[in-house]
Amino acid sequence: MLTMQDALLALTKYWTDRGCMVVQPFNTEVGAGTLNPATILRVLGPEPWRVAYVEPSVRPDDSRYGENPNRLQTHTQFQVVLKPDPGNPQELFLDSLTALGIDIHAHDVRFVEDNWANPATGSWGLGWEVWLDGLEITQFTYFQQAGGMTLDPVSVEITYGIERIMMALQGVSHFKDIAYAPGISYGEAFGQAEYEMSRYYLDDADVESQKRLFEEYANEARRMLDARLPVPAHVYVLRCSHTFNVLDARGAVSTTERAKAFGRMRSLAREVAQLWAERRTELEHPLGIAELPAAAPEPTEYPAITGTRQLTFEIGTEEMPPSEVTKTAEAVRAALTEKLAATRLGHGDITTYATPRRVVAFVAGVQAVEPDAERVVRGPRKSAAYDADGNVTKAAAGFARGQGVDTAELHDLDVDGVEYVAVTKPDPGRGAAEVLSGVLSEIVSGLRSDKNMRWNDAKLSFTRPVRWLVALLGDQVVPVSVSTLAAGRTTRVHRTAAQPQVEIAAAEGYLDLLRIHGIEADPAKRRAQIVEAAQLLAGSVDGTIDFDGEAALVDQIVNLVEEPTAILGGFSADYLTLPGEILTTVMRKHQRYLPVRDADGNLLPHFVAVANGSVDAEVVRGGNEAVLRARYEDAAFFWRADLETSLEKMKSELDKLAFEERLGSMADRAGRIGRIALSLANVVELDGDDLTTLRRAAELAKFDLGSQMVVELTSLAGTMAREYARRAGETDAVAQALFDMELPRSAGDPVPSTTPGALLALADRFDLLAGLFGIGAKPTGSSDPFALRRAAAGVVAILREHPSLQAITLDKGLQAAAAEIGAQGIEVPPASLEEVAEFTVRRYEQQLLDRGDDHHQVAAVLPLATAPAVADETLASLQELVGSNDFADLVAVLQRVRRIVPEGTEASYDSSKLTEPAEVVLHEAVQKVGQAPTALGEFVTAASVLVEPVTTFFDEILVMAEDPAIRAARLGLLAAISALAAPVLDWQALGTSLTAAE
Amino acid sequence: MLTMQDALLALTKYWTDRGCMVVQPFNTEVGAGTLNPATILRVLGPEPWRVAYVEPSVRPDDSRYGENPNRLQTHTQFQVVLKPDPGNPQELFLDSLTALGIDIHAHDVRFVEDNWANPATGSWGLGWEVWLDGLEITQFTYFQQAGGMTLDPVSVEITYGIERIMMALQGVSHFKDIAYAPGISYGEAFGQAEYEMSRYYLDDADVESQKRLFEEYANEARRMLDARLPVPAHVYVLRCSHTFNVLDARGAVSTTERAKAFGRMRSLAREVAQLWAERRTELEHPLGIAELPAAAPEPTEYPAITGTRQLTFEIGTEEMPPSEVTKTAEAVRAALTEKLAATRLGHGDITTYATPRRVVAFVAGVQAVEPDAERVVRGPRKSAAYDADGNVTKAAAGFARGQGVDTAELHDLDVDGVEYVAVTKPDPGRGAAEVLSGVLSEIVSGLRSDKNMRWNDAKLSFTRPVRWLVALLGDQVVPVSVSTLAAGRTTRVHRTAAQPQVEIAAAEGYLDLLRIHGIEADPAKRRAQIVEAAQLLAGSVDGTIDFDGEAALVDQIVNLVEEPTAILGGFSADYLTLPGEILTTVMRKHQRYLPVRDADGNLLPHFVAVANGSVDAEVVRGGNEAVLRARYEDAAFFWRADLETSLEKMKSELDKLAFEERLGSMADRAGRIGRIALSLANVVELDGDDLTTLRRAAELAKFDLGSQMVVELTSLAGTMAREYARRAGETDAVAQALFDMELPRSAGDPVPSTTPGALLALADRFDLLAGLFGIGAKPTGSSDPFALRRAAAGVVAILREHPSLQAITLDKGLQAAAAEIGAQGIEVPPASLEEVAEFTVRRYEQQLLDRGDDHHQVAAVLPLATAPAVADETLASLQELVGSNDFADLVAVLQRVRRIVPEGTEASYDSSKLTEPAEVVLHEAVQKVGQAPTALGEFVTAASVLVEPVTTFFDEILVMAEDPAIRAARLGLLAAISALAAPVLDWQALGTSLTAAE
Repeated sequence: MLTMQDALLALTKYWTDRGCMVVQPFNTEVGAGTLNPATILRVLGPEPWRVAYVEPSVRPDDSRYGENPNRLQTHTQFQVVLKPDPGNPQELFLDSLTALGIDIHAHDVRFVEDNWANPATGSWGLGWEVWLDGLEITQFTYFQQAGGMTLDPVSVEITYGIERIMMALQGVSHFKDIAYAPGISYGEAFGQAEYEMSRYYLDDADVESQKRLFEEYANEARRMLDARLPVPAHVYVLRCSHTFNVLDARGAVSTTERAKAFGRMRSLAREVAQLWAERRTELEHPLGIAELPAAAPEPTEYPAITGTRQLTFEIGTEEMPPSEVTKTAEAVRAALTEKLAATRLGHGDITTYATPRRVVAFVAGVQAVEPDAERVVRGPRKSAAYDADGNVTKAAAGFARGQGVDTAELHDLDVDGVEYVAVTKPDPGRGAAEVLSGVLSEIVSGLRSDKNMRWNDAKLSFTRPVRWLVALLGDQVVPVSVSTLAAGRTTRVHRTAAQPQVEIAAAEGYLDLLRIHGIEADPAKRRAQIVEAAQLLAGSVDGTIDFDGEAALVDQIVNLVEEPTAILGGFSADYLTLPGEILTTVMRKHQRYLPVRDADGNLLPHFVAVANGSVDAEVVRGGNEAVLRARYEDAAFFWRADLETSLEKMKSELDKLAFEERLGSMADRAGRIGRIALSLANVVELDGDDLTTLRRAAELAKFDLGSQMVVELTSLAGTMAREYARRAGETDAVAQALFDMELPRSAGDPVPSTTPGALLALADRFDLLAGLFGIGAKPTGSSDPFALRRAAAGVVAILREHPSLQAITLDKGLQAAAAEIGAQGIEVPPASLEEVAEFTVRRYEQQLLDRGDDHHQVAAVLPLATAPAVADETLASLQELVGSNDFADLVAVLQRVRRIVPEGTEASYDSSKLTEPAEVVLHEAVQKVGQAPTALGEFVTAASVLVEPVTTFFDEILVMAEDPAIRAARLGLLAAISALAAPVLDWQALGTSLTAAE
Repeated sequence: MLTMQDALLALTKYWTDRGCMVVQPFNTEVGAGTLNPATILRVLGPEPWRVAYVEPSVRPDDSRYGENPNRLQTHTQFQVVLKPDPGNPQELFLDSLTALGIDIHAHDVRFVEDNWANPATGSWGLGWEVWLDGLEITQFTYFQQAGGMTLDPVSVEITYGIERIMMALQGVSHFKDIAYAPGISYGEAFGQAEYEMSRYYLDDADVESQKRLFEEYANEARRMLDARLPVPAHVYVLRCSHTFNVLDARGAVSTTERAKAFGRMRSLAREVAQLWAERRTELEHPLGIAELPAAAPEPTEYPAITGTRQLTFEIGTEEMPPSEVTKTAEAVRAALTEKLAATRLGHGDITTYATPRRVVAFVAGVQAVEPDAERVVRGPRKSAAYDADGNVTKAAAGFARGQGVDTAELHDLDVDGVEYVAVTKPDPGRGAAEVLSGVLSEIVSGLRSDKNMRWNDAKLSFTRPVRWLVALLGDQVVPVSVSTLAAGRTTRVHRTAAQPQVEIAAAEGYLDLLRIHGIEADPAKRRAQIVEAAQLLAGSVDGTIDFDGEAALVDQIVNLVEEPTAILGGFSADYLTLPGEILTTVMRKHQRYLPVRDADGNLLPHFVAVANGSVDAEVVRGGNEAVLRARYEDAAFFWRADLETSLEKMKSELDKLAFEERLGSMADRAGRIGRIALSLANVVELDGDDLTTLRRAAELAKFDLGSQMVVELTSLAGTMAREYARRAGETDAVAQALFDMELPRSAGDPVPSTTPGALLALADRFDLLAGLFGIGAKPTGSSDPFALRRAAAGVVAILREHPSLQAITLDKGLQAAAAEIGAQGIEVPPASLEEVAEFTVRRYEQQLLDRGDDHHQVAAVLPLATAPAVADETLASLQELVGSNDFADLVAVLQRVRRIVPEGTEASYDSSKLTEPAEVVLHEAVQKVGQAPTALGEFVTAASVLVEPVTTFFDEILVMAEDPAIRAARLGLLAAISALAAPVLDWQALGTSLTAAE
C-alpha cells in the first residue's frame, strides 16, 4: 500500500523531474500553501518559477478534536506552481496522478469549475476543483491576481489535498486510519497534536493575548514595509492572518473587528506584494524573464475549394464552467452569423454545439469564393478637380495616381447633392478560406465570458484557456492564426485515450469522428443519453428520476461531460432517516448526483452519477459511494449533534456570526426581524393563533444559522429550522413559520404558505433592504453581494401572493424596518427608503414584463405597486377591460382631460361660473360620480357616466375662455375628473394601445 | 551534479527505506531540528520512534546579510531520530553518506567528540561532530536527557548540516553558489530572504515589541501547561525561544535578562516534557513500547587450556573522546590487576592499550587453573553444638546437613576467643576461563568516564557505547557475558574496510592482526608514527613542527585515530599576513592541524592533518585545504574589515554589547576598568612612561571586543587588541598593556608582563568580582556563568607575580572597584566585599595546595593573603625555616603563649607588678624585641631572644596568680608577645607539624 509519506515523496519526485524546485513548508502557520512566499510572492512579476512543496495548512476553524473523519485543523497540502503556464498543465497533473498509482483510465477524473479568491490578500484565480470519482482531491487554479496586482505571466497553481487523496486511495473512512508510514497510522503520528491544537484553537487560546499579538504583528508588518523589507513584512502578515483565524475560531471576532482586521491585512498584503515586485525589479530579476510562446505566423496562402463545402470550426478549451458552455455556443453562432453577413461569402445554415472542452461551429454550403464586386472611391470635389478650363487639377491627378488609375478613369459622383470625382475599382471576391480565416480569427479573439482569465497567451482572454483550433473547409485546413494558436486538422479527444489527438480528414466527418472517440458534441443528444441511461438505471432499482424537477441539474451535467456514463450508486438506507432535503442537497449541490425516488416520490437509497468517458464503472461507483457516505456521515454527525442542542443554544451562536459591520451580528439582525414582523402584524391586525405563532417564531428567528448543519450546508437554512423546531416540541405552525421565513429563496421559488411565515419573510427582507440602502451599500450593476435584488423580488412575490397583507405597503414595511434599525442608532435617510421602494417596484415591473404583460398596462399599474397585490388586481381588471369599447372610450376621455389640465391645477371650481349646458351637464355628472371607488372595475362602472358629458364638453366648450374666472372654473372641473381617476391607475401610461386596437 | 534538493530527497529516501517516517519542518521558527516536537517530545517516554525530516533552522545571531560564505540566518538541517538506538547507528550514518554519493573509502570521515547540551530545555546528549576531511558535516548525538527528564530508551539523533555538505560535494566556496535545483542556485532561490531576514534580525526588529511578544508567549505557554496541553505549550516555548534569539541578535539582552529568560524557558520546557510524558502514559503509549536487545545468555561451560597462555581482551566501543582513551586504558589495567589479585589465578604482566574504538588488555602467562584451596565454614557456637553429654545438638546436626557433611566432620574453630563448630571444605581451583569470565564481565560493567551515557543496553553506562567484546585465552574464547554483550573472537577494523569484521585465531596474534588491517593499538607507536610522518612531511617543505609546543595537540590526535595517515596541506601564503595567533588558533583549536614553521619559528603556509586510515590522500588534502581556506577567508575578511575601523569605532561597539543588566553595557564596564586601574596606579604611585601608557590603554580598554575578529574568535581577545593597537599607531607599550589585561586566561597561563597591563588586568577582575558579588550574583557550586572563580584566581596570580604591586591588597582593589560601581549608582555592600575577598583568598589557598604545599603552612600564611605576594614571601621564609630547631622552639613558645592568653586580653601591662626574676627577664626581652618586623625571617631573628625567657617564665611562674593585679600583668605580658607575633602569620595554624618532625 502506498503510504502517505510515499505519496508525498512520489509527488515530489514527479514534479522535480518536471523542473520544479522543492522548498520547505513555511516556518510560520499558513492557512494554505498559497500563502507560502514561494507562491504568493513568486507569482508576482515577470520571473519564471516552478516549485513544488508540502504545506501543512493550519485552519483553526476546522478544528474538530480529531473527531470528525474528514476535517483537521492541520491538513497537508502539496502545492505546485508553474510559472508561466506550460500550456499543458492539466495533462501534467493527470500524469502526476498516475505517479501516485491512480489508474486515470479506470477512474472518473474531472475538472469542475471552482474559482478561488482570497480577498484578504487581494488575490484571485480561475480554475477547477479536480474530482476523482466525485471526490475533490485538488484545487487547480490559473492565478490571475495576487496582492491586488495583475499577474503577468499567469501562474498555474495546483494544490493537492493529500489526506483526501490518501483516504480514497487507501479506502479508509477516517483520516486517523490513513497509513502514514509503514506501521504507523496518521492518528498514531498526529492524533495527539490534532486534539490538543483543536483544544487550543476552539477552547483555550487566550483571546486578549491573541488580540495584542495581532496588534504587534500588524505594527511590525507596517514597520517592515516602511523599511522596504517585504520578506519579514510578509511573515508578519501571515502571523496576523493566523492570529485572526485563532480569534475567529474562538468566536471572538465582532463584525466590526473582522472588517477592520480584514481591511488592515488586505492593505498590508497588497503593499507587501507591490514592494516585493519593486524589490525584484531593483534586483534586476535574478531568475530572468519568463518567456511565453511566440505568436503563430500569419497565414499567407489559402487553399482553394471547388463547389460548396461545409466549414467545421472547433475551438478547443480546457473545461469551461457549465454555465459558459451553452452561452459560448450561442455567442459563437451569433458572431459567426454577423461576421459572415458582413462578407459576400455565400453559405447555408450555421449551427453551433458545445461541450466542456470544445465549441464547434458548422457552416453548411460554403461557397468557394465571394462574388466579384465593385468599389467606388471618392476623390476631391468636382470643383477642385478641374480648373476653369476643365483640365484636371493637381489634386485630382494626385488622387488618380494614388488609386493607381489614369485620370481618364475619374468619373463624377453625387453625394448628398455635392459633386465629387471618383474612381470605380473592381473588388474581386476572395476565396472562402481567406474570408473565413479572418472571420474565425476574430471570433476566437472576441470570445468573452462573465469572468475572463489569462493563460500563457499574450493576447487572448476567456473563461478558460483555449488550447487548440480546428478549421476545416471540406478537406482543406482553413489557415486561422490567433495569437499563439494556428488552426489545423488535429482535434483532441479524452485526455486518457490511447491516442488523445486525432486527425480529421474532412469537415463533414467531424461529428461522427468525435462519436467514434466517445464524444457527443451535440448537447441535446448528450442530454438525451443522460436521461435515457439514468432512467434505465433508476428503473433497475424500481425507482425513477424527476427529470422536470432536476432540469437545472441535468443542464449542468450535460455541460460537465463529453461522454456521459451514468452510474448507479447506493448508500445505506440508514441515512434515509435524515430529512430528505439534507440528502438531496448534498447529492445535487455538492455531487451533481440525480436522486432516485420511488413511485410516491420518496427517496430511495440510490443515486445516479454521470461520469465522463469509458471509466471502470465499479471503481467509479465505489469512489462516488464513498464520497457520499463521508458526506452523509458528516451530515448525520451534525444532525445528531444539533438534535442534542437546544434551540436557544443554537440561537445564541448567532452572536458570533457577523452580518455587516454597522448593522451588527446575525443575532442583531434576527432580533430586528422579529420586532419588524410584529410591527407588521400590527399593521394587518394579526390576532389569535397566528399572532401566538408569530411571537414564538420571532423569538426563534434564524436560530438554525447557529446549527452545525446549516453552518455546513447553508442552503438548508429554514429547512433545518423547521426540522429542529418540530423535534424540539415547537408547534407545527411555529416550525412552518420558521421554514417559510426563508422563502422565496430564488425567483420561481414558492412564497411562504402561512401568514406568520410571510410576515417574518417580509420583515427579513425589509430589514435587509432598508439596512443596506440605509448605510449606502446598495447594489451596483455588477455587484450585489447581499442579494438585494433577490430580497426585493421576494418582497414583491410575497405581497402579491398574500393579498390579505396588502395593508403592508412597501413604504410601511420599509418604515417599520427603518424604525428598528434606527433603534440601533443607525438613521436610515428617507431618501434611501424612497430609493428602496423604487428599486422594489422595478422588481415588480420586471416580474410582470417577464410574465409577458403589455408594457403599457404594466406602466399603468406601477403607481399602485407599493401594494403589489393591489396593482395585480388592477392589472387583472385592466386586462379584462381591455377590448371593451366603453372602457377604451373612458380611457380616451380621461387621457384627454389629463392632457388639457395643466400640472398643479386645483381640483376645485366655482360651479356658479359654469353656465353653458355642456358645462352644467358635466358638472352634474361629476357630482353624480362623487367619491369614485379606486378599484378599477368599480371605478369604470361609476365613471362611465362621464364619457358622454366630457365628449360633449370638449365639443362645445372652449376651455380657455377669455374670462379668467370662467377659465378657472372649467379647468377646475376637468381637474376634478382627473383627480377622481388618478388613484385608480396611470391612465396616460396606457397610451393609445387600447384605442389603436379599434 | 547532485543538487541540494536531490540530496534532501536522497536522504529522505535512504532513511525511509530504513523505517523512518517523514514529517514536515515545524511551522514555527526553530533554532534546530531538535526542537521540532518530532524530536524533543518524541524522545521522551518508552515509545519507539524513527523519524527523518528537513528542518530549516533559524538562528538570528548567524545573520550576515548573505555576505558571509558560510553563515546563514536560516540553514537547512536534515534530522534523523532513531529510538531506540538500533545498535549500529554509525554504520547506518556512513551508508547514508554513500547514498549522497560520497566515497567514504576515499574520504576521511571521523567521529570527533562533541557533546550537546541545551540548557534552555534541560536537554543533553553525548556524541560527535562528524568530520568529512576536516569539515564538520553532521552532529551525531545519543540523546540522554530532554526537558530535564532522563531518556529511557535513549534516542540516536543525527543532524546533517546540508549547506556545508553541499558546498563540499559541489566544491563551491559560498553558500550562494550551491546548485540548489537544476539551473537555480541557492542564492537565486533564497538570497533575498537571507538578506532581508538578516536585516530584520540584526537591525530592524522592534526590540520593545519583541519583549512584549516574549511575555505573551511565555504566559500562553504557562496557561497551556495548566490546561494540560503540552503540544500548544511547546509551540509557545519555541516562540519564546525564537523571540529571545531575535532580541539577542539585536543586542538587546542583558546578562540578567538572559538568565531570567533562560530560567523561565527552561522551567517551561521541563514542564512541557513532563506533561507530554504524562499524557502519553494516559494515552497508553499509542505507538507501543520500544524493545531493547535481550541480555546475552550467561556462560555455562568454560573451555580448558593447558600450560599458560596469553589473555587478550578487547572492549570495542564507538569513538571515545580523546581525553577518555588514555584514562580508560589505565582504569582497565588497574581494575584487572586488582580483580585478578582477588583470585588465585596465576598470571604474568598486565598491559593495556587503547585507540578511539577499542580498549585492549593483555595478560601474559595465564595459568590453566587456580590452585586448589580449603574453605572453613563456621557453624553454631560450640556451647550450642553439643549438649551436656557431648552429643551433637539438633542445631549442629542441621548445620552439618546443610553443608552436606557428616557430623563427624565438624571440628572446633576459635574466632576472637569464642569457640564454634565448623567444617573445612575443599575449594578446588577454577579453570582460568571461568575465573576470567567473571573478572572481565565486572570490568566491562565497571567502565566509567567523566561523563557517562546510555545506549541500547539496559545496564551498561560509559563514555560511548560498547559494541563488542573479544576475549581470547590462547586460542579459546573466554565466555564473557555482560548485559547484551557476549565476547567472541570477532573484532572490528575500519568501518570502511572490505571486511569490517575479522576473526582472531589466538590471543597472541591480536596486535599483529590489527596491524595487518592498518590499526595500531599501541598509543606510543601511534604517536611515534604521527611524529615521524609529520616531521617528514614538514621537512619536505623545509619546515619543522614544534612537537614540544604541540604536545597536547599531538596527544589529542593520537587518540583521534587508529591508523594515523599524516597529510601535508597548504594554504595561500597570502594568509601569512594575518597575525600568527589567528592562524594557529584556527589550526589547533578548530581543525587539530599541526602548524608547520621554518627554522626561525615563523609559520609556513602548510599544515599537517592526520587522517584515519588508508584514505585517498589527494581527496582528503583537498577537503582539508578547502575547510582551512574557508576559515581563513572568514578571518581575513574580519581582519580587513577591522583594520578599516578605527579603534574608537570598535570601542563604540561596546555600547551595544550587553554585560549585565544592572552593571550596564560592556562599554560601562570598560570605562570602570580604566578608572579602577588609574585608581590602583595611584595606590602604587605609578608615574612616568608607565602612567602615560596606562592612561592611554585605559581609554582603549577592551576595544577589541567590538572587532569582528573577536566577535568570531573570542579567544583572541587581547591578542587582537595588541595587533590592532599597534597598527593604529599606538605605542608598543600601550599595545602590550591591552594584550596583558586579558591575562591570565586560565590557570597556568602567563600573567601580564607589564605594570600597566597588570593594573588593567587587576582592575578588570576587581570590577567583575565586586560588581557581581555586589548585585548578589555570586557563583554557586555548579554554576559560575561569569567565571568568577577564574577571575579571582587571576587576581591572585597577578599579585603574586607582581610583588611591586603589593600595596594593592585585595581589600584596596575591591574598594576601588566598589567606588566606581557605586558611582554608577549601585551600592556594593561591605559584606559583599568581604565575601569576595574571602572567595579570592580561597583561590589563593587552592593554588598553594595544588602546588603541593603543606596545608598547615598554607593555613598559617592565609591571614596575609590580602597581599598574596606578602603571603608568598612569608611562606617561602617559613619553608626555609622549617626543619630548624630554633624556629620550632619559637613556634612552640608562641603557640603556648597564644593558648594561655584568653581572647581579648589587652596587650599592655603594669610592669611594676612583675617582680619575679623570670617575669622581669621576660619583660626585658620583650622590651628588647620592641617593634618587631613583620617579615617572617626578620621576625624570627628578632624574636628568638624570647624563647628562653618564655620557657623559664612558664617553668617558674604561675600565670594565674591569686592577686588579680599580678595576674593581669602576667597575662598582659604574654598578650604583648602574642600581639608582637600575630601580624607575621597564624602561628596556631602551623599546628604541631614542625615539632612532630623532631
